[in-house]
Amino acid sequence: MEIEKPYLLFLGDAPDALAAKTAQGIVDWRRDWCVGQLRLPGCLADTGLPDLDIATARARGGKTLIVGVANAGGVLPPHWAAPIVAAIAAGMDVAAGLHMKLADNPEIAAAAAKHGRRLFDVRHSTERFATGKGVKRPGKRLLTVGTDCSVGKKYTALALERAMTARGYHADFRATGQTGVFISGRGVSVDAVVADFISGAAEWLTPANDPDHWDVVEGQGSLFHPSFAGVTLGLLHGAQPDAFVVCHEPTRTRMRGVEHRLPTIREVIDLTVQCGRLTNPDIRCVGIAVNTERLSDEEARRVIAETVRAEGLPATDPVRFGVEAIVDKIAEEFGLP
Amino acid sequence: MEIEKPYLLFLGDAPDALAAKTAQGIVDWRRDWCVGQLRLPGCLADTGLPDLDIATARARGGKTLIVGVANAGGVLPPHWAAPIVAAIAAGMDVAAGLHMKLADNPEIAAAAAKHGRRLFDVRHSTERFATGKGVKRPGKRLLTVGTDCSVGKKYTALALERAMTARGYHADFRATGQTGVFISGRGVSVDAVVADFISGAAEWLTPANDPDHWDVVEGQGSLFHPSFAGVTLGLLHGAQPDAFVVCHEPTRTRMRGVEHRLPTIREVIDLTVQCGRLTNPDIRCVGIAVNTERLSDEEARRVIAETVRAEGLPATDPVRFGVEAIVDKIAEEFGLP
Repeated sequence: MEIEKPYLLFLGDAPDALAAKTAQGIVDWRRDWCVGQLRLPGCLADTGLPDLDIATARARGGKTLIVGVANAGGVLPPHWAAPIVAAIAAGMDVAAGLHMKLADNPEIAAAAAKHGRRLFDVRHSTERFATGKGVKRPGKRLLTVGTDCSVGKKYTALALERAMTARGYHADFRATGQTGVFISGRGVSVDAVVADFISGAAEWLTPANDPDHWDVVEGQGSLFHPSFAGVTLGLLHGAQPDAFVVCHEPTRTRMRGVEHRLPTIREVIDLTVQCGRLTNPDIRCVGIAVNTERLSDEEARRVIAETVRAEGLPATDPVRFGVEAIVDKIAEEFGLP
Repeated sequence: MEIEKPYLLFLGDAPDALAAKTAQGIVDWRRDWCVGQLRLPGCLADTGLPDLDIATARARGGKTLIVGVANAGGVLPPHWAAPIVAAIAAGMDVAAGLHMKLADNPEIAAAAAKHGRRLFDVRHSTERFATGKGVKRPGKRLLTVGTDCSVGKKYTALALERAMTARGYHADFRATGQTGVFISGRGVSVDAVVADFISGAAEWLTPANDPDHWDVVEGQGSLFHPSFAGVTLGLLHGAQPDAFVVCHEPTRTRMRGVEHRLPTIREVIDLTVQCGRLTNPDIRCVGIAVNTERLSDEEARRVIAETVRAEGLPATDPVRFGVEAIVDKIAEEFGLP
């Protein structure tokens, strides 16, 4: 399943920019895949793309309407059905990452059947996965892991794909969450697969490849998060990374959504190596991505310098300072492209 | 969801005893919940229960028809629909653990709707779980873990429930696989829940309880199994066990279904303690269940004695020698009932 480009981004009546963060993520990383945005009256989000109606979007080549907006509960409000049906009637596929499936809306399902268009519910994979086999596959893989959820694992992976490609590496971002799937046009929401198939889905996502090819895999959760560690471990085993980057938010004191303390970067490195060795005995850490969003420039530089000193590894904030230091380490450990 | 007792066990046309091992497991542990068995022509399995037709089973109080037979692919053969529909028409609920849902068979679904009976597809939980919270709950919990899949985790948990109850403990077996669900009348197939909810499902399964109450939780997979370790870790975090028992099959050299070597008992103890501490800092190992099915009596005694010596913990084969040694250790560590 590959979502066809270019996209028309549907923002609905998003009450603020945060509600449209999926759309914004697509624009940040794949602006050239987007013909425009479609907003309903009252929409307070704006990705900066041109506002297009469906006919104009089609005329400009738009192939897929992406529902790039979330609301409480992941439901599809009834008044979104009409514009979605209109896009289908105009010849577009539709992709969404809501809990509620597009395919479960009778009007949308009927329109897709009538016009022969595809509906992508990226949170509900229809792919039949095998269970993981744990056999070493050719090609190289890098996984972003974290001290917690929502610390920048997707951003770091995308920044590494971009920087590695610029240096001449063959590198592909591999998406494991819904926004990532839209950004790469394919992928799997690993947190939504049936538990028995987590590592199998990760193996499907990162198949055998050329020896010098890098899959740069978006991590999920944390081995230390009591809600999601199972997903993290299955992804680690299935992705069998040669290299990993630890993502960390230094101002956080509790793990997201629970009362647990944050693990240290060192604890995450050690447990990732210990568990990752099961499917890749040579796994190693190549850097630390520190999310310094809440720090001043000076504090950010200080925290990063301390991290470099404490861990003996490159550290950087991918947003503020780029990821060149980590790519240097990849070159040192695994060779130039 | 609680499956109503007593059961009529449907064996279909099982070609051998192995195909009816779910039914056999129910009879082994809950014979008094079963009124009889229903076999089709050609069935070569026999649980030893009386053969009853549906009318007789109903007259003897049978409340639920349990599909206690598996076939390749977990499908429901078309010729099973008629006896299942007949049971529904006679007033029985139906429960199955097939990949194919009872509810997806139009005849069966229509009969259930018409007669107001319930269909339990225990591999496809309809329960809406929350994500795991990792908060310590009152009550005590024991989890069986393993060096591999299919080494006796369910059997060990059931034997411990029985032996602990006989000693005066308040202990309940908590099922995490389909046969276990039929044996306990409730539970969840944790390998079939959506990945994000593994630990949440385990928390739902083992809720807050009296301080002296023991949940004896059926483990799944192995932290060292590259296919299923994610399920194992989520279950460990959600069950937050105070005590665990390592189940091991000493003649196995490769992990089930993959090429990986078996971990040592010590490796399993250490990683279980290391990861389990996240949700229960006092987690400890209380014994080793050695599956000596393939060994002579003499070899079995030798292997068990060696295990006791090497690990400094009680070891036994629950089938051959019972689990009293492990219950003694529970009493020593956690007090008499």
